[in-house]
Amino acid sequence: MNDKKQDAQLLSEDWWHTKIIDMQPGVIRYSGYPIQDLIGRVSFAQMIWLMLRGELPSRAQSDLLDAALMSGVDHGPQAPSIAIARMAATCGVGLNNAMASAVNVLGDVHGGAGEQAVELYLAVAARIDAGKAEALAVKEALADYVHEHGKFVSGFGHRFHPVDPRAPRLLELVDAAAASGVVNGRFAQIARAVEAELAVGRSKPIPMNIDGATAVVYAELGFPAPLARGLFCLSRSVGILAHAWEQTQQGGRNKGPIPRQFIPTYDGVPPRSVPLQEGEN
Amino acid sequence: MNDKKQDAQLLSEDWWHTKIIDMQPGVIRYSGYPIQDLIGRVSFAQMIWLMLRGELPSRAQSDLLDAALMSGVDHGPQAPSIAIARMAATCGVGLNNAMASAVNVLGDVHGGAGEQAVELYLAVAARIDAGKAEALAVKEALADYVHEHGKFVSGFGHRFHPVDPRAPRLLELVDAAAASGVVNGRFAQIARAVEAELAVGRSKPIPMNIDGATAVVYAELGFPAPLARGLFCLSRSVGILAHAWEQTQQGGRNKGPIPRQFIPTYDGVPPRSVPLQEGEN
Amino acid sequence: MNDKKQDAQLLSEDWWHTKIIDMQPGVIRYSGYPIQDLIGRVSFAQMIWLMLRGELPSRAQSDLLDAALMSGVDHGPQAPSIAIARMAATCGVGLNNAMASAVNVLGDVHGGAGEQAVELYLAVAARIDAGKAEALAVKEALADYVHEHGKFVSGFGHRFHPVDPRAPRLLELVDAAAASGVVNGRFAQIARAVEAELAVGRSKPIPMNIDGATAVVYAELGFPAPLARGLFCLSRSVGILAHAWEQTQQGGRNKGPIPRQFIPTYDGVPPRSVPLQEGEN
Amino acid sequence: MNDKKQDAQLLSEDWWHTKIIDMQPGVIRYSGYPIQDLIGRVSFAQMIWLMLRGELPSRAQSDLLDAALMSGVDHGPQAPSIAIARMAATCGVGLNNAMASAVNVLGDVHGGAGEQAVELYLAVAARIDAGKAEALAVKEALADYVHEHGKFVSGFGHRFHPVDPRAPRLLELVDAAAASGVVNGRFAQIARAVEAELAVGRSKPIPMNIDGATAVVYAELGFPAPLARGLFCLSRSVGILAHAWEQTQQGGRNKGPIPRQFIPTYDGVPPRSVPLQEGEN
Repeated sequence: MNDKKQDAQLLSEDWWHTKIIDMQPGVIRYSGYPIQDLIGRVSFAQMIWLMLRGELPSRAQSDLLDAALMSGVDHGPQAPSIAIARMAATCGVGLNNAMASAVNVLGDVHGGAGEQAVELYLAVAARIDAGKAEALAVKEALADYVHEHGKFVSGFGHRFHPVDPRAPRLLELVDAAAASGVVNGRFAQIARAVEAELAVGRSKPIPMNIDGATAVVYAELGFPAPLARGLFCLSRSVGILAHAWEQTQQGGRNKGPIPRQFIPTYDGVPPRSVPLQEGEN
Repeated sequence: MNDKKQDAQLLSEDWWHTKIIDMQPGVIRYSGYPIQDLIGRVSFAQMIWLMLRGELPSRAQSDLLDAALMSGVDHGPQAPSIAIARMAATCGVGLNNAMASAVNVLGDVHGGAGEQAVELYLAVAARIDAGKAEALAVKEALADYVHEHGKFVSGFGHRFHPVDPRAPRLLELVDAAAASGVVNGRFAQIARAVEAELAVGRSKPIPMNIDGATAVVYAELGFPAPLARGLFCLSRSVGILAHAWEQTQQGGRNKGPIPRQFIPTYDGVPPRSVPLQEGEN
Repeated sequence: MNDKKQDAQLLSEDWWHTKIIDMQPGVIRYSGYPIQDLIGRVSFAQMIWLMLRGELPSRAQSDLLDAALMSGVDHGPQAPSIAIARMAATCGVGLNNAMASAVNVLGDVHGGAGEQAVELYLAVAARIDAGKAEALAVKEALADYVHEHGKFVSGFGHRFHPVDPRAPRLLELVDAAAASGVVNGRFAQIARAVEAELAVGRSKPIPMNIDGATAVVYAELGFPAPLARGLFCLSRSVGILAHAWEQTQQGGRNKGPIPRQFIPTYDGVPPRSVPLQEGEN
Repeated sequence: MNDKKQDAQLLSEDWWHTKIIDMQPGVIRYSGYPIQDLIGRVSFAQMIWLMLRGELPSRAQSDLLDAALMSGVDHGPQAPSIAIARMAATCGVGLNNAMASAVNVLGDVHGGAGEQAVELYLAVAARIDAGKAEALAVKEALADYVHEHGKFVSGFGHRFHPVDPRAPRLLELVDAAAASGVVNGRFAQIARAVEAELAVGRSKPIPMNIDGATAVVYAELGFPAPLARGLFCLSRSVGILAHAWEQTQQGGRNKGPIPRQFIPTYDGVPPRSVPLQEGEN
């Protein structure tokens, strides 16, 4: 390599650097592990963990991660993300584009619930670590949460399901993992304490939903809160792809949200004439 | 600048280069024109032309471009792009994100009609230039088009409007520009010949629509076909922004395509039990 | 229409409604104005105003809007949005997709400066309206701003330009519009007061940049703060399209950020062996 | 439910329908399987299969899918998708948005190689099924491929790796699966025959790369070609997320492709004055 290239190399190295992947011609290593030694020995979920954490998980840890990832793949075309994927598939774009338009809307409201729930659990845990009783810690953290985010507590309650069938099953898995020492179990307990507190004074409880339950898994496994959103995006990408693909096979061109013959209501200014513009007469 | 930086500069210059913009500290020029001399003297439409073509248009040319851009801004929430923008706005993402998810679906089917119509007009023109009579040139180009794209000819016919009110008005402007020598007028004539040919043997004509008409404008002004799609994206971005903003003001959280109480039909496999997995017993 | 369709129509009307566009077969009206009466009489910038505000602007108002829109179209491939558009164009996606990936990143940091500057000006104005002296109002609003957003005040200072050549020219136009009564001029004054306050105690001033100047225009014209971001997205979409198109013509496949021979630095864990996985021996 | 709602329900059912997911309050089933019976019993890879195919795979089948998914997660920040994710993360958008801008560019050139390789293998297989000898079938299918796509054959050769370390390892897994009857093995053979044919008359072979090898896996497992792209998008989303997250932790604001002090080359029109515009004097 001549001097010019060497210098440019040094400068580009300053600009782009990573601990994730190491590449040389013929060599690919992730966090130091050669790819050919990983293939066939670690699962997709283990690889996801390695990429995000820099270390390989135990099989028991990755089984929990696996369960959280597989349980959030889809909640049907009523969800904006899935509807977007399906509509995009009728517009003459690729599957990658349909996936992008859909994943893009997994924002604070549609994809951020898991992240917000992890933050809530961590806030409770921090108060307990500071010496407060669990009940008080929960009350205070919830009050802070509602002050910042409003009355809907992410991870609890569902507009459609009286009880979200995914949540209790995921909690069972966390309990089993805690019983065998894979995880600590403290975030499962905190989440249940939040659920109990939310039920106080109500005729109907506000049970934990999929986001509250996957947040327990992610918190137990030590993922930072923003990655709860990231992991949900990976998980929901599966449903997004599946629905885009199903729609592709169903066909359709420029499929909109409602059948073509039903037009949206116009509730604006009645018909009027364009006033004379300057220079017209 | 020391040698090392100089060399890296040279290399990065090889990698990223442009005829569009020239920047030095305190200096910004587009195709050679200093920005401070353009501001207040050329319109947004003129600037769009400059950025895409490298030269400033005459006022008469930019007036035509202006008309094509302003006439395509919106066709309501029935269009997937607009529905996507509105749904995105309820998901907790920014206006830029809502715009991105929506512009993204302006693909071959939803945003490519203008591009395809320009290609068709150019194909007719090429045949005429090769010495064929207009009627034959139109017949042959249409046959090729249908062979490649199917029976729906982009730019003609509308699922909702018997006559698209935007098309005849745009053609009037092109005719006036042709009469005063601003444009040649040949693509307006070709488009009308296509329209006439499509009507042969039908009880109802298949009149030119907005895409067919803006394609006439873009072809007359000398834009290459792919930019007809690019310009449509700029134009429709306005409606996308307006609807995302209106939806933001209307509020809503995770608004889906149909009201929540109406669930999509499931027409798949009936309920069944998960079979024993390997290792289970 | 039979009863079933009528009822569904009523329900879909409840779900999708808009004041922007009114459509019937053969009829399209924006805020009540028939499209065929707008075409050829109002410019793209006037149409943008109509779509976002529901009323047509005067020519003098739209001239100011035009200037703000045309002045922000591009700042070269060093900006992430433009680099993304160019790289996308080498990946085998459409211009609409390249535009989407790029517009998408005009987030709080890359596209939100205008919005934040409008908010700052409005915060100063509110304090003045509440009876405070301008100097105090500026000091207080800036202190609040820095508390919330950090020490970089959006709209002021530039990493590349000692003086951004776009800002003083835009302010001239605002001053002229204020002199002729088109706008009030108060936000130009507030912005200059902010600029003066930021210079206090510094050897070099922190002059207003393009975002600070377009924010003055948008605030003078009465646009709410979030639309400053939306309008910037429309404006920058022009540069995004132009660069994607230029890159398309330059060619290239999978063009990355730096030349292929320069690989990013790996600064992570050294090479290591994959440990025995459970079940292996 | 009253008549009006019932009718609207019927109509919305006509418009949105799916075989993927069945939802009732408290009930979620995928292809008939209740979610609570799947959680903890099937892996993420098995769930991906179920969502795309409608049936659960055997463990051996999902192990192969797992290997293909985990082997394609990342090829470093030199790839446009990863660079885009990292740059996006510095622009003030969410992880979901960074992922979307990046996944979006996995188009024909950057993400379509697996799909194109599956198509090629299927074209060879179809010719063999029609009675042609393998060697001839390969020659003909390759000739057709080059005619349509150009001289670079997707799935073979690499600009950086003399031998892609992922490909031979994946083929080993396919061979093992074929030996035990999990898959047929015909596409592994076809891919090797393609590799051999490409080497004819060259001093250096053009060895199979990751896309050629995952295409073998997907073809062996019976996935249609477009899903090879979809599955790659799921796989690469992991690297995209990991790099966006790493960049978030590294910090940076509006990080562009090259260091700020190195500006792209301007190779366009030299500085010039804006000509008098109409109405100016």
